[in-house]
Amino acid sequence: MGGEPLLIVKIGGAVIDDPEMLTSFLEKFKALEGQKILIHGGGRIATDIGAKQGIVANMVEGRRVTDDQTIDLVTMVYGGLVNKQMTSKLQKLGINAMGLTGIDGDIIRSQKRPVKNGVDYGWVGDPVEVNEVVLTSLLQSHVVPVIAPLTHDGNGHILNTNADTMAGAVASALAKQFDVTLILTFELEGVMKDVSDLNSLIPIFKESSFNEMKNSGAIHSGMIPKLENAFYALNQGVTTARICKYDQIDTKNGTFLQI
Amino acid sequence: MGGEPLLIVKIGGAVIDDPEMLTSFLEKFKALEGQKILIHGGGRIATDIGAKQGIVANMVEGRRVTDDQTIDLVTMVYGGLVNKQMTSKLQKLGINAMGLTGIDGDIIRSQKRPVKNGVDYGWVGDPVEVNEVVLTSLLQSHVVPVIAPLTHDGNGHILNTNADTMAGAVASALAKQFDVTLILTFELEGVMKDVSDLNSLIPIFKESSFNEMKNSGAIHSGMIPKLENAFYALNQGVTTARICKYDQIDTKNGTFLQI
Repeated sequence: MGGEPLLIVKIGGAVIDDPEMLTSFLEKFKALEGQKILIHGGGRIATDIGAKQGIVANMVEGRRVTDDQTIDLVTMVYGGLVNKQMTSKLQKLGINAMGLTGIDGDIIRSQKRPVKNGVDYGWVGDPVEVNEVVLTSLLQSHVVPVIAPLTHDGNGHILNTNADTMAGAVASALAKQFDVTLILTFELEGVMKDVSDLNSLIPIFKESSFNEMKNSGAIHSGMIPKLENAFYALNQGVTTARICKYDQIDTKNGTFLQI
Repeated sequence: MGGEPLLIVKIGGAVIDDPEMLTSFLEKFKALEGQKILIHGGGRIATDIGAKQGIVANMVEGRRVTDDQTIDLVTMVYGGLVNKQMTSKLQKLGINAMGLTGIDGDIIRSQKRPVKNGVDYGWVGDPVEVNEVVLTSLLQSHVVPVIAPLTHDGNGHILNTNADTMAGAVASALAKQFDVTLILTFELEGVMKDVSDLNSLIPIFKESSFNEMKNSGAIHSGMIPKLENAFYALNQGVTTARICKYDQIDTKNGTFLQI
């Protein structure tokens, strides 16, 4: 609300895993005018590299647990390989990208997720504080922050963190100063009435419909936290929230969320 | 020369590999007052993790070559694991550290080392440009940059880079604006007349003596580029250059270099 325009774009893991999709996305991201922040997910590459190192996914009740080996693995892969490759590609395109994690400059501090109903997620964090001063200062220096899905607890522990949640938290915090547009991108066109029908895109999606579709089970799994984060951001003062395909960020296509 | 004081500290790989030495160093680093930058080496951990992934060091004429697999490995290990673990430890100590590489914010741009006398080092870079504007802006935001030994060529390639050289290049560039002290630390007390005699520390070491000892072979291998970088920095306007033990950075011990 008010302030200078700021675009916060989140890119999902599947796009990162596909070099062609990634290149297409980065070129569109370059074309976006004005101040912007990129937040990226992890991708399957961590699993592949983990397998080479003999790190087997630690599953507890169907959920992957971030154990000691896994947090080291994702710190290397998300914070190192994926983040730096993306940053160097953006530099090549002429964007002064700066690859970061939530640890760096204390940009995003999290709380280790508490054990709930007997499920211990391990080194997983939920954001509790965003450092607006450092992020604003980077934007003023004409730097484009590129943030990997890692945060810290302030007590020396690195925490694996959901990139959608990070994007929602950063957008909400910066909405105090900027006119924030949050764009969550993935492989689909947006929110679908029926994921098996590519023509069922919902162009405008209200929070009330989300609650209904969540209760009926029409929206499930990964889409629930993605939408919850986006509606949360709108409720915190973010001007616009849109979910769209990775190569549509420079258009008005996709699903606009409304509260 | 002139300007506000700025400390640039380089820490070597062997200290990073030893958790006790690293903790001791970080606590001393925390205690240093004023604006500061930390530049760290790689450490043997990349070799260990590479071995787990089946990456064998590619040796050509006795030199390790940074091939495609190796640049990905060091990007993960130096830019991800080592850099983020150090940054989160400094955050725990109350230092607002920001883990970076030369790629980030285009802080250090390098040139891929040309093939010379038939030796191709692979993805290895020699710094050619330091972005003083971005580094100064970070320091003004009370952030402490923590820089891993990686740079880029501006053309999308990540380059493995010597941390001593990076420290010398950053110190030289920032000497235009700051009163720069460059401290290169490692496991020894400083420059020794005779490395087998711990009492042979040279407290003040002149560039002329360096040239003599280099020619006579009294100083050799890794110490040569370290000292060359430090003397280069002094010639570029850096006020003080000192080589000391990792736990002596808050003292006046070690070897002071003089041109």
